[in-house]
Amino acid sequence: MATIFSKIAAGDIPSYKVAENDRFYAFLDINPLVKGHTLVIPKHEVDYLFDLEDEEFAGLHLFAKSVASAIEKVIPCKRIGVAVMGLEVPHAHIHLIPINKESDMIISNPKLALSNEEFATIADSIKSVWENNKTDL
Amino acid sequence: MATIFSKIAAGDIPSYKVAENDRFYAFLDINPLVKGHTLVIPKHEVDYLFDLEDEEFAGLHLFAKSVASAIEKVIPCKRIGVAVMGLEVPHAHIHLIPINKESDMIISNPKLALSNEEFATIADSIKSVWENNKTDL
Repeated sequence: MATIFSKIAAGDIPSYKVAENDRFYAFLDINPLVKGHTLVIPKHEVDYLFDLEDEEFAGLHLFAKSVASAIEKVIPCKRIGVAVMGLEVPHAHIHLIPINKESDMIISNPKLALSNEEFATIADSIKSVWENNKTDL
Repeated sequence: MATIFSKIAAGDIPSYKVAENDRFYAFLDINPLVKGHTLVIPKHEVDYLFDLEDEEFAGLHLFAKSVASAIEKVIPCKRIGVAVMGLEVPHAHIHLIPINKESDMIISNPKLALSNEEFATIADSIKSVWENNKTDL
């Protein structure tokens, strides 16, 4: 059965998309720790990050790097933190979290409640920067 | 000035080493969240993970993947979690954390107090598996 993330990447479940190519997909976490909290996934359905083949594993991380670069240009922060837990949804995903202090990464922190409009504005801003960066390559 | 992690990779400050090649180094975190909590660094001194060039960035993650595979064979856990914050030591480092539940990754959790002997035993076990895996390639 397709995971919720496969359905998101296929467009069957809506998401606030920030970046996509033929193999990878990035979208806003709808239970964000902070504004700009993003999930990066392979379209290929693999439960455990470290079970990805080396080539796809490296490609996913380079894609996440390009997304992190776009997030930083939109969300004021010191840097982009990275977290992978993966015990809840059986589809490998990398959290990219704009942080100003290490405690911004505490996954048990209360989540932000944002309106649809706020999510859409953030996603569109990051996506626009990401698309422009890509064109610059 | 060399960072504490550069001094560790150079052997000027002792560490519980678990893996090393010409470009990357992995050692036990001495303030571990759980047994087997490991830090993976590039020997090349770069503060921010996402400032690494793509080739070195991908290489670091593939090295971390090989270390994660060794940790899992030594430390009973559901999987290896990943965290990068990087606001404390100005030298990019990836935390690899054996987890059984997502809350094992809460970075504000109390740290384990292990004896030198316990650290050395864990490091040697992981290192031995890592070296054997490498030989199998």
